[in-house]
Amino acid sequence: MDEEVRRQVEEKVLRAVVEGRMWAPGETVVVAVSGGPDSLCLLQTLHTLQPHHGGRLHVAHLDHRFRGAESADEARRVVDLARALGLPATVEAVDVPALARRERLSDEEAGRRARYRFLVGLAASLGASALALGHTADDQVETVLMHFLRGSGPAGLRGMRPVSPPAPWMTEGLVLSTPLRLVRPLLGLSRRETEAYCAACGLHPARDRWNEEVRFLRVRLRRQVIPLLEELNPRFREAALRLAQLAAWEEEDLQALLEERWPALARSEGRTVRFPLAGWRNLPRTLRLLALRRAVEQVRGHLEGLGWEALVAAGRLDEARVGTTVALVEGLVARRGYEEVAVGRPEDLEEAAPWPDLGEGGVPVAVPGRTELPGGYALVAEEGRPEEASPPDAPWEAWLDAEACGRRLWLRHRRPGDRFYPLGLGGEKKLQDFFVDEKVPRALRGRVPLLVSPRGIVWVVGYRLDERFRLRPESRRALHLRWEGPKD
Amino acid sequence: MDEEVRRQVEEKVLRAVVEGRMWAPGETVVVAVSGGPDSLCLLQTLHTLQPHHGGRLHVAHLDHRFRGAESADEARRVVDLARALGLPATVEAVDVPALARRERLSDEEAGRRARYRFLVGLAASLGASALALGHTADDQVETVLMHFLRGSGPAGLRGMRPVSPPAPWMTEGLVLSTPLRLVRPLLGLSRRETEAYCAACGLHPARDRWNEEVRFLRVRLRRQVIPLLEELNPRFREAALRLAQLAAWEEEDLQALLEERWPALARSEGRTVRFPLAGWRNLPRTLRLLALRRAVEQVRGHLEGLGWEALVAAGRLDEARVGTTVALVEGLVARRGYEEVAVGRPEDLEEAAPWPDLGEGGVPVAVPGRTELPGGYALVAEEGRPEEASPPDAPWEAWLDAEACGRRLWLRHRRPGDRFYPLGLGGEKKLQDFFVDEKVPRALRGRVPLLVSPRGIVWVVGYRLDERFRLRPESRRALHLRWEGPKD
Repeated sequence: MDEEVRRQVEEKVLRAVVEGRMWAPGETVVVAVSGGPDSLCLLQTLHTLQPHHGGRLHVAHLDHRFRGAESADEARRVVDLARALGLPATVEAVDVPALARRERLSDEEAGRRARYRFLVGLAASLGASALALGHTADDQVETVLMHFLRGSGPAGLRGMRPVSPPAPWMTEGLVLSTPLRLVRPLLGLSRRETEAYCAACGLHPARDRWNEEVRFLRVRLRRQVIPLLEELNPRFREAALRLAQLAAWEEEDLQALLEERWPALARSEGRTVRFPLAGWRNLPRTLRLLALRRAVEQVRGHLEGLGWEALVAAGRLDEARVGTTVALVEGLVARRGYEEVAVGRPEDLEEAAPWPDLGEGGVPVAVPGRTELPGGYALVAEEGRPEEASPPDAPWEAWLDAEACGRRLWLRHRRPGDRFYPLGLGGEKKLQDFFVDEKVPRALRGRVPLLVSPRGIVWVVGYRLDERFRLRPESRRALHLRWEGPKD
Repeated sequence: MDEEVRRQVEEKVLRAVVEGRMWAPGETVVVAVSGGPDSLCLLQTLHTLQPHHGGRLHVAHLDHRFRGAESADEARRVVDLARALGLPATVEAVDVPALARRERLSDEEAGRRARYRFLVGLAASLGASALALGHTADDQVETVLMHFLRGSGPAGLRGMRPVSPPAPWMTEGLVLSTPLRLVRPLLGLSRRETEAYCAACGLHPARDRWNEEVRFLRVRLRRQVIPLLEELNPRFREAALRLAQLAAWEEEDLQALLEERWPALARSEGRTVRFPLAGWRNLPRTLRLLALRRAVEQVRGHLEGLGWEALVAAGRLDEARVGTTVALVEGLVARRGYEEVAVGRPEDLEEAAPWPDLGEGGVPVAVPGRTELPGGYALVAEEGRPEEASPPDAPWEAWLDAEACGRRLWLRHRRPGDRFYPLGLGGEKKLQDFFVDEKVPRALRGRVPLLVSPRGIVWVVGYRLDERFRLRPESRRALHLRWEGPKD
């Protein structure tokens, strides 16, 4: 019976290692051992299977200094076990409660950070290619539920992968001579199986008080939430695992679809990624969100702290006005340009002001005619009959009362004291206040072209007409204006 | 204050109706009114907004006979309210507890079925184009959680859509002269908002005892699970709603991507849908699952009861042996053909046996040489040196001991009493038992080609070699066989 339990568990673990290509023979594998049933099962199976997988095992244990003498005792037991198996072991102690106070983290989070920094640091110093973690299918269910609870979006529901790269914060300040993989050979086993395996091998796991801290989110999920959900659906665990699998496939497939389109979709320039609008508009919404994530990753190196709200807002920037900016994460923004959506730091994006430099004096406008402007821009003015007016392609087109405008029109940048009568406001407004209300970025305000007549501002190009010059039912002649970008 | 509450709620509802294009002016809208705060809010807002949306409202109420006199009283109150608003109303009574016993359903499920059959039936008889339901954002959170709990896959997490077609069971036996939409104008409102709106309008919602039945799954989610999850993440509701939105986009985008590929991917023939392997193998896994769903919908008309496990298994059929069959749902299967994956009823799929008809006497095999077979199949036999043997492309290729086989080889169909020594079994077996164990469909067994020598069966083509003829380390000459399909 015991023999059968051992054989089954070892077979599953070996299959996971081989199919996941977790490491190659001769490579060093750091095995994270807390002393609980999962990690003891991990250590024992990997040791027994050594002739089959060929990894060189190194045991690692962090003493969290969380339970005084008890935790030091556990560390000793892990070292004893490693010695009994003839394996090298490294133990380190971190005062997690002190760390939590110092870095203002929860004990749970501080413990997690200390643990991974130790494990990854050790792996780096040993030149290990894999860090083996004892996460089981039960941990996976908890992870999926945690992501569901926190609202991570469908991509987050995929939970932990059998093989994944370390998070950027884990490797901060480290030099990795060998690329390191986090590997999870037990992800297909239940906690019950690891316990049965330990019993079959005569191993005595530590009773992990860490797992009994009911204030920890994970422990509350395990103790309170999952049992309740299992009352409502006895097969909830399977459901969560299946969801994780389907979500993982969906994420992989969407990433592959994005990969195909990326070269035509994006231009990386310096520390920015620019998406020309033509391709952007043809991109399905889901792929836009993934494209923005990818841009952030390229510019910043990682995705930590990036939330879905910001991505969703940025994904709609093609419908927004030129200059509209969405804060993505930590100083990075997405901005609607004249013919692109760009991701980068505001100072890197400013360079590409989507407007021509009209100089000190401005530029006279040909009416009717086409006025060429620096940088490949142009303003086209045509006379027409009021009844021809079609709904303008705001904000790049305008229909005006030709008689109100006259023919002495001029394009210039703003000047102190500029005021106008914004269409629909029913009154006068300072241009400066208008820019503030419209959230025009400060750096762009001086470049927005103003169409002016001797009577004042006619059109704040790209933003708003002046009430006094609009086409009215009684207008006798219409003036049709069209602003053109460098590549229209 | 009350005025402000009313204005805000009505604005949200109108925007939902207009942006969702829920109905056009002049069309009839059946409004489902239980008498609770959500449905009273729905009725009152739609009535107030009538000049803006132009729908002709008709009130509908089902008396569930669930609470005796109390439920009849509620029905009267709904009719009174409709009369006060000058709207036509239809009330029907169904003995839900009796229905539940008769159809062996839970009271919750029986009530749901009776309610929708009544509402959709009424809408059909009135020629209505929309059935307005009072589902709120809180109902959406519950729905997302329910799908998560039941393991519906990422697609199910999108919850209820603002506009959706009725489910097939709702319209069973009905003739719809006008296409009917289920519409949910309150999906952007919280339950708290509908209650505040009722209070602001002086409406007195019924206390819905239905909603207090703790044995109902939905009520338990509302009372027990969601409050617990909100303790762990106070913004859990927002998280669930965001997840629903992202999942809906993902589903829509994936469907659109499938739509693009469908014409090249699938062939509909009679009551089957066939996916030629070449295109199938290039299809991302997620799209395969959606393609199978779509095939089921085409063949059967709806998706009810179709689970993810079966889809996942069917999605891998390209890796399985010809003839492998996966039960999808209710008599429908997916089957691996020689060069396709096909969806249909087994009797519709049998026609396409992926084997040539070798006739009564069979066909002699040219050794070495190429033997052409009926239907465009062929068997190619080449002599070679044992050390050239490469891992065969099982099950279409075989490396044999040329001396053991000899040159008098023959292809024929099975005969009563056929036996052979299946490779790896270490003993003799009846061919009939082998076919049963290998789950070869009964209708195909008589067509599987057998390569025979005077000493017996050499190769059950597509399935297994005979142990006696296999290539061994000590073999001096090798015979390489390759089976070709009509389009290889």
